[in-house]
Amino acid sequence: MCPAPVPENTQRGFIIPIGGGEDRERERQIHRRFVDMSGGAQADIIVIPTASQLDETGPDYHRIFSDLGAGKVEYLPIARRADCDNPQFAEMLDRATGIFMTGGNQLRLSTIIGGTLVAQKIRRRNAAGIPVAGTSAGASIMSEHMVAGGPSNSSPAEGNISLAPGMGLTNAVIIDQHFTQRNRLGRLLTASSYNPFLIGLGVDEDTAAFIGPDNVFEVVGSGTVTVVDASQLTHSSMWDASAGEALSLLGLRIDVLGQGCRYDLTARQAYPPDEHAHFCSLPVSGD
Amino acid sequence: MCPAPVPENTQRGFIIPIGGGEDRERERQIHRRFVDMSGGAQADIIVIPTASQLDETGPDYHRIFSDLGAGKVEYLPIARRADCDNPQFAEMLDRATGIFMTGGNQLRLSTIIGGTLVAQKIRRRNAAGIPVAGTSAGASIMSEHMVAGGPSNSSPAEGNISLAPGMGLTNAVIIDQHFTQRNRLGRLLTASSYNPFLIGLGVDEDTAAFIGPDNVFEVVGSGTVTVVDASQLTHSSMWDASAGEALSLLGLRIDVLGQGCRYDLTARQAYPPDEHAHFCSLPVSGD
Repeated sequence: MCPAPVPENTQRGFIIPIGGGEDRERERQIHRRFVDMSGGAQADIIVIPTASQLDETGPDYHRIFSDLGAGKVEYLPIARRADCDNPQFAEMLDRATGIFMTGGNQLRLSTIIGGTLVAQKIRRRNAAGIPVAGTSAGASIMSEHMVAGGPSNSSPAEGNISLAPGMGLTNAVIIDQHFTQRNRLGRLLTASSYNPFLIGLGVDEDTAAFIGPDNVFEVVGSGTVTVVDASQLTHSSMWDASAGEALSLLGLRIDVLGQGCRYDLTARQAYPPDEHAHFCSLPVSGD
Repeated sequence: MCPAPVPENTQRGFIIPIGGGEDRERERQIHRRFVDMSGGAQADIIVIPTASQLDETGPDYHRIFSDLGAGKVEYLPIARRADCDNPQFAEMLDRATGIFMTGGNQLRLSTIIGGTLVAQKIRRRNAAGIPVAGTSAGASIMSEHMVAGGPSNSSPAEGNISLAPGMGLTNAVIIDQHFTQRNRLGRLLTASSYNPFLIGLGVDEDTAAFIGPDNVFEVVGSGTVTVVDASQLTHSSMWDASAGEALSLLGLRIDVLGQGCRYDLTARQAYPPDEHAHFCSLPVSGD
């Protein structure tokens, strides 16, 4: 699914994939930035805890975002597709100033909210300028093509990644999470090489890519975001490899971006901290 | 330590790092190529089982290489530095047509044979044209700078790799093994970025890089060899990062080479199978 059209004279909101396992107790710099970006004391944040099957997930995020000064935080208790037709939820999303999708299982999330009024509202609100963040499963579902699963610890190989249709907030990237911690480079290389127009984003735990309306993202967190750019591939054995056979992929470009680095997804160009600051750079945190 | 000088009118022998866990029972294509390259029925192969503390390691390789048609196979029971002064071992290495270093612990291997007559003989025999293969620990020790240890599953970070002086058969590369299986990209990126002149070779299990005298290598095996070329780095946060802080490394080039691919370590250029065949390509296996 392509991103929803951005209304005239409007900028798309930030898209914020987080690699899971983010700091929720100490500095909470990722959550803090998200709250600030959502309006701080004026924020009206809606949490979608559907990927998780734990009852405490919604309340947990209510506590975190409230602690960080968000004016209002609510979560939508969506556990089945029918819940997504609730007109009250649609109204809540219509007035939201920030939306957060929790971790859990991205296929649970996509099978429950995919194609519903809730998904449509999230897409349209993001296009209208509202930031949408997601962690772990909530990060995976953001892109047009979603990583649904696949073995960790593998070399790139045809069939070592399962793709499914995602929410399509962006179609510039494909997102993988818990990236270094679960050794997922092999499957992300496979995904990027299936069709090299897709940039692979491997997001580490406690790390986020804040993707601005200009498709430049900045890294926040204690780990790295690995960018796989396969557009300069000179050779791939993908099309004639047998199932499970190790692939040859020659000419990959990799950038490993730590805190403060930026990447321009349109120009496919990485920048160190203090370079390429731009009009939609992140607001400075309040403390 | 730099490679031993190659005598006039001579070509250095192949250097063959193997990523460990190689097939020893079925096709054994890596061992088979090594035996062929060592002379097949005329081969006189010396096994150095010192990295291992298992009594059966030497006899195991005796069986494997003999089964594959090697004319003569012996192993040197070196368990302490004093064993390395045995003049009989020096004579055996002087007439060897192939040398194989087993897996185990590379620091055990380097601390026992480093700087001894045995190490000197291995270096000189390789310079004189004899192939030297090593698996796992035996692969790590081949390069001038040896990966001695470091955490798997980590992002690149200063201090996440321990380097020690290796045997110095080559100083063009730094070698890591069990590469995909143990998620060692983070530490190899660290090593390559310490000083970008070094090309990082991440060798998967059951996979080998056959590095010819012209510094072009060919991949043999069921996995891949990942080449990290940091020479085009545009930014590195290495020098001012705190201990354990995730690094930013922008502008890395990665090639993932499967069976039959070649890489020219001098030109830093990868080639798909069937391209860049050259004068010192591998002998065709006998069956």
